[in-house]
Parts: sequence; C-alpha cells; structure tokens
Amino acid sequence: MTRSAASHGTEAPGTERTPRVAAARKLLRRAGRDRAGRFLVEGAQAVREALDGAAVHELFVTDTAAARHPELVGAARDRGVRVLPVTEKAAAALSETVTPQGLVAVCDVLDVPVASALAGSPTFVAVCAGIADPGNVGTVTRVADAAGADAVLLAGDTVDPHNGKAVRASTGSVFHLPLARDRDAPGVLGACRDAGLVTLVADAAGERDLYDPSTAALLAGPVAWVFGNEAHGPGPELMAAADHRVRIPIPGRAESLNLATAAAVCLYATVAARA
Amino acid sequence: MTRSAASHGTEAPGTERTPRVAAARKLLRRAGRDRAGRFLVEGAQAVREALDGAAVHELFVTDTAAARHPELVGAARDRGVRVLPVTEKAAAALSETVTPQGLVAVCDVLDVPVASALAGSPTFVAVCAGIADPGNVGTVTRVADAAGADAVLLAGDTVDPHNGKAVRASTGSVFHLPLARDRDAPGVLGACRDAGLVTLVADAAGERDLYDPSTAALLAGPVAWVFGNEAHGPGPELMAAADHRVRIPIPGRAESLNLATAAAVCLYATVAARA
Repeated sequence: MTRSAASHGTEAPGTERTPRVAAARKLLRRAGRDRAGRFLVEGAQAVREALDGAAVHELFVTDTAAARHPELVGAARDRGVRVLPVTEKAAAALSETVTPQGLVAVCDVLDVPVASALAGSPTFVAVCAGIADPGNVGTVTRVADAAGADAVLLAGDTVDPHNGKAVRASTGSVFHLPLARDRDAPGVLGACRDAGLVTLVADAAGERDLYDPSTAALLAGPVAWVFGNEAHGPGPELMAAADHRVRIPIPGRAESLNLATAAAVCLYATVAARA
Repeated sequence: MTRSAASHGTEAPGTERTPRVAAARKLLRRAGRDRAGRFLVEGAQAVREALDGAAVHELFVTDTAAARHPELVGAARDRGVRVLPVTEKAAAALSETVTPQGLVAVCDVLDVPVASALAGSPTFVAVCAGIADPGNVGTVTRVADAAGADAVLLAGDTVDPHNGKAVRASTGSVFHLPLARDRDAPGVLGACRDAGLVTLVADAAGERDLYDPSTAALLAGPVAWVFGNEAHGPGPELMAAADHRVRIPIPGRAESLNLATAAAVCLYATVAARA
C-alpha cells in the first residue's frame, strides 16, 4: 500500500491508473505474486502461450496492440478473459521491458505440488536447487522443455519462476511442463527417488564423468538432474542426498561452465543417451 | 575528441582525469579499441589472466585494490607493466561494472590472423558467425575453451570479443585460446576447410541430427562448428558454404534453444564423441 501510494506520487498527472492496473502492478514483485497467487505475462508470444497453457484472468491491451493482434484479443474473449483497454503509459507501468508491447496478461501462478508434478511415472526431471538468477531459471526451464523433461522442480532458495525475467527467458516454456516449488531441497530429492528417479547432481567435483559409458546407461533410465546455486554449487547437503554426483569433463583450460550452459550439457546428454 | 570533451564537461570538478586515464577511457568503445589496437581488462581475476596471456601495457590501480592484491601489482611490475595509481573515481570511469574493483589493465588486442589461429593442425574450432550479443560471444568462447577447442574464429558481423561484456562473460577464456576476426564469413569457412576441418553449421533446420551415429563419427574427426546470429540464424550463404547443417533434436515442446545453450550442446557433443 505504502509503496503503491509512493509510486503514484512520483507520476505525472493524467496517467491512467485504474484500480485494476494498480492491483496488477503489485504482481511485478514476488510478495505481490505470492499474496495474489497470480503473475504477469507480457508480450504477444507469451500471452498466446498463456492463453493455451494457463488460467488467464485479465488482459491489459493498448489500442495499438489490439490493432496489431486482433486474433489474440479475440482468443482471450473466447476464453472468458476480461479484456481491459489501457493507455500506453499504463501498459508501460505493467512492463519490465525497455520497449513494452502493450499486451500484459494476469494469470494464476503455474506451480503445482511436487507430488502432482511427479505423478504419471516421469522419466526425466530437472531440479533447480538454489538458483538465484531469474534468467537462469527461465533458461534451464527452456532447455528442460526442449529436451523433453516431464517437469521442472524449484527447490530450496531458487528464485520465483514467475519473475518477469524468468518468464521471458523461458520463451513460453513455463507454460509447457509442470512446475513445482518446495523450499525443502533434500525433501524434493526424496520425492524424486520415491517417484522412481535416480537423482544426479551436477558438480565440478563429481565422482562420475558425464561421458563415462556407465553414466550414459544411467541416463537412459529415469533420472532427475539437480542444479545448484550459480556461485556456491549444490552444497554438501544436496551432494550427500543425491544418488550420484556427475562432473562435466573440461578438457580445455576454462575453470568451469556457467550454470545455464552446464545444465544444457547435462540435460542434452540425457537426450543423447536416449537417442 | 568531441565525445571525450563532452563527457569531461558532465563531470564533477575534482575528478582525477590524467591524459592516460582519458586515453584508456576511449578503449571502452569499439572505435577506440580498433584505433589503438588495445582493450581494457577489469578485475583481479581477469587481470591475472591477462598478465599470463596477453601483452599488458598499463595497470590502473586504486590504493584499496593495491592493498588487497599486492601480488598482482608485483607481478605486473615484474613484467615491465607501468603501474598507475588512480583514485576510486578514475577507476570507476574506466569500469563498466556496478561495483568497480579498482583494477583495470590496458592490453594489446588478442586477435591474430585466421591463418595463425588455424596453424598447427587444429582438430576442433568454434566459429561465431554474426553473433550480436557480447555476452554470447564471451560465453561461447568460455564453452569452447572448456571443451578443449583449438581456436575461436569471429566471422562476419560478430561483436568485438574485446567488448567488456564479452571479456567478462568469458571469465578469462579470451586469454586461453587463439582468437581471430574476419568479416568474410564464407572465407573463414573456406580457411577451416583448407586446414582440414569439416565445417558444421548449427541450425534448427539442419538435415543431420546431432545425435545420429554418423554425426558422432564426424565429430570424432577434425571439425569446425559454426554458430550464426541469435535472431536470424546462420543465413543461406553460410548454410550453403558449410559441409553439413546439424540440428539439435527437440523432443519436447520448446521451439528452440538460445544461442549459448545451443552452442554448449554442440561443442560438448564433440567432447562426448571423443571421450
């Protein structure tokens, strides 16, 4: 409330700021999303994916965007979404990007309980365990989706996958596969094991080489890949909780890979093992 | 000259702005780097790598940084580098990061002629052909370095690898392996072929699957991987110039991978084929 009032105070008179825009603006922050159980989806492609894969409540749209994407506005109306015309200024207030597209949807958050995400005999799951950068969470979700994973689990202190940067980096993938969140990271690994998955944590000091034939044999079976924090790695608790610790070989001189490329290499080694 | 004078004009009186700092500041821009043949390297780890892997001319250092890294200042002096004490403000003026570390080195640009980069019977080369984002060029260089590539070639309209963001994203890898730049991208592919490398361009519409056994057989031999522009891909000219067009399979629902993760998957498929 205080913050909303303060931001009102800094604005030029004449800004359209209906109560609905003001309410939606709170979803730009994690606390607002957690309270409302809703998040924002921005831009034509993401809104299209949201209409297909999420519960959309409202669609804020500028006149320009409505003229450019009449099929999207029509699809929203067909699905019973409340379409709300807004000024460019109001659309910009709901946007985190430099060039707002004038289309912002309010959707129910996507995450389901861990047990639901792991229902139906999954054979390939990605676990983000303490990933701090929203771009990385979005990119790992995109790669997991591309690689055919059954679910993405966000464990421990991992950033909110409904963060705007995470949603944008996922380029729609957050709508494609089940997402679940649970702060108890070892508990999430236990749930994976109970679902029949072998848990593999990616770590530079892992005892098992990613390209060892015995690792390829493991990857052909049901597995959950676990990726830890960008700076500190998975940490001793998760290292101990996982069935195997797997290292990506580094034949060259670099010390390491960054988190997103390391996850891509591990997730696609799984695709290769099943090809 | 005009720009430099203008930026002087916007600064608070009392800023230390020696002629050497002013000259180094021009290296923050591509035109300045191209004119001087030098670039800036910021931060303790990168400066350490530069002292080992590049021709360093000057090291700007704040008192705080000198007290924190006496071994680096000593190593610079041992190598005949001119060590220049600067104020925090001058160090910040040479920095592109939010929290400047107070250590900035001026080095000769790293790139060598394509023929030099391909000397010595290379078996594994990465070609960035039209990559626009400096973070991506740095990340691809880092992955190529990790994967044991012999060189990174920057072809066509690829961004300058001496850009500060590229250098930071490479986390030192720009100093580890030969870099070469040439605007003639098909010519670079021809040079690769003349060096005995089979040229593979990564493309979603490639006729060859990355995990087909015949591709693995190719990857076990000498190859140059070619990665095109983030938005537009490699383009028809490069597609035609390459020996093979290789697609990363997408068993899931994502439309594509981003450039850095796609390059990581391709470069590490090469590591796997040689394991």
